[in-house]
Amino acid sequence: MEDPGLARVETEDGPEWVIREEPLLLEVEGERVLTMRTPGEDEALALGFLLGEGVIRSLDEVRDVALVPARASAPEAAVDVVRVSLRDPERARGASGVLSRAHEIRASCGLCGRTSGEGLTKGLAPLVAGRPRVARSALPLMVRELASRQERFKKTGGCHAAGIFSAAGELWAAAEDVGRHNALDKAIGLAARTRDLREGVVILSGRGGFELLLKALRVGIAVVASVGAASSLATEIADEAGATLVGFVRESKPGRVYFDDQRLV
Amino acid sequence: MEDPGLARVETEDGPEWVIREEPLLLEVEGERVLTMRTPGEDEALALGFLLGEGVIRSLDEVRDVALVPARASAPEAAVDVVRVSLRDPERARGASGVLSRAHEIRASCGLCGRTSGEGLTKGLAPLVAGRPRVARSALPLMVRELASRQERFKKTGGCHAAGIFSAAGELWAAAEDVGRHNALDKAIGLAARTRDLREGVVILSGRGGFELLLKALRVGIAVVASVGAASSLATEIADEAGATLVGFVRESKPGRVYFDDQRLV
Repeated sequence: MEDPGLARVETEDGPEWVIREEPLLLEVEGERVLTMRTPGEDEALALGFLLGEGVIRSLDEVRDVALVPARASAPEAAVDVVRVSLRDPERARGASGVLSRAHEIRASCGLCGRTSGEGLTKGLAPLVAGRPRVARSALPLMVRELASRQERFKKTGGCHAAGIFSAAGELWAAAEDVGRHNALDKAIGLAARTRDLREGVVILSGRGGFELLLKALRVGIAVVASVGAASSLATEIADEAGATLVGFVRESKPGRVYFDDQRLV
Repeated sequence: MEDPGLARVETEDGPEWVIREEPLLLEVEGERVLTMRTPGEDEALALGFLLGEGVIRSLDEVRDVALVPARASAPEAAVDVVRVSLRDPERARGASGVLSRAHEIRASCGLCGRTSGEGLTKGLAPLVAGRPRVARSALPLMVRELASRQERFKKTGGCHAAGIFSAAGELWAAAEDVGRHNALDKAIGLAARTRDLREGVVILSGRGGFELLLKALRVGIAVVASVGAASSLATEIADEAGATLVGFVRESKPGRVYFDDQRLV
C-alpha cells in the first residue's frame, strides 16, 4: 500500500521522495484549529493533540472521532478534517485559543511576569518522584528501535519521529511527521488508547524542545529523552516539574542527563 | 564578552552549554506578538520578521526600533521588548494576526479552498526569472562558510542557522537561533540594512521548510538552499513562485535541485 505520508516529485536531478505536508483542520465541538501535518494517523494526531495541550485529560472524554477526507472535486471541502465530539462539549471551550501555541506562551510566561519555566508548569498534575524506574542503558536501545521504524525519514530525510516506550523498553507507539509536535501528538494519541502513559518514556528523534516536554508532562509522562540537545527553557521546565530530561542519546551513547529525580538506574 | 545566546547548566553529567530560549515581545504600533527566541540581534529579529511576514516592504518604512531589556526587579517588565514605530502606523494594523502563523495558513490554503502552494504564493511580488545567476558549485562553499559561523551550534548542538549570501558567495549576514524561523528573520533583518535582497541567496542549516521559503520570497530572495530536505509543500511553492529550491547541500555535495528557473549555472 502506498504511504500517504510520502510524495514523489520530479526534481532537476531526477525523481525524489519528499515528505508530504498538507493542512488538517481539527474541529472540536465547533472550535477549529488548522495544522500543517503529514497525512496518516490523523485521528491519533487529533486525540494526542487534545491530550497534550490539556484540552482533555483522558480518551474517556471523547464521544467520537472521525476523519473526513478532502475531496478534490469540492472546493468547499478541499482540506482534510478530523471532527471530535466530547461527552462534555464545554471542555472544548477555548480550545482553539489553547491551540495557538503563541497564546499558550503569552498566557504563561513573560507577559504575566515570568520568563522561566515556572509559569509554564503551572496547572500540571504533579509527577511521581522515582516513577517509572528506567535503566539508563535502555535509552540507546529505544533510540535504535525508533530509528528502525523511521521509514519515511529513510526515504526523504525530511521528517521527525517520536516514540513512546514502556520503562522496560517495549515500544508502545511510534510516529513520523514533517512537524515534530505532530509526531509526538500522534504517538501520544496512539499509545493513550491502550496504555497508562504515566509509566511511559518519550523518545524524540530531534531536539528536546520545551513544547514537546510540556506535551509529555501534560499526559503524565515523566521521562523524555532526545537524540538532540535541549534548550535552556526545556531544562528549566524539567527542573521545575521534577521531570527526567536526557539529551544526546544515540544508538551507541547513553546521552547527557539534564535532570533526573531518581528515575534512571 | 559573554554570548547572551548561551546558558551554562549543571547537568547530572557535569556542566554543559545549552542554547538560551527566552520570550521576546514585539510591539509594532500597539500590535503585540510574543515569540520564543535566543537573545541577541533582537532588533534585527524584529525587522526581519516584519519584512519576512510582509507587514512592511522596506526598512524605509521604519521610523524607530528599540530594545527594552527585561528587568528582573520589575515583574511588569519581566520580558524583553522590541518596540518598532512605523512612518505609516496603519501598516501595522492586523500585524499581530499576520504574526500568528496559524492565521496565515488558515487565510491562505485549505480553508479558502486550496491545499497546494497556489494559495500561499498569492500577493507575492513576482520574481525575476534568471536572476540572480548562481554557480551551483558555490552552494557547498556557502554551506561551509555558514558552518564556520555556527559557534553556538558547536557549543550546544541545539540551534539552527541561516545565512544570506551574494550570488557570488559573499556572506552578507548569518544568525543562529533556537528557532529556525528566528534565525532567518535575524539574517534578513541584518542583511536588509545594506543589501538588495533580490540579489541574495539564502542558506539554511536545517530543512527547507515552506514557511522559511515564503519568508525569503516575501523579501524578494529567489534562491533558497538547505542542508536538509524540503517538504512537498515547499516544492509546490517553489514551483508556483518560480523560485530556485535546492536541498541536501553539504560542504562537499552540490545537493538536489527541486526547482531552478534558470538561475543555477
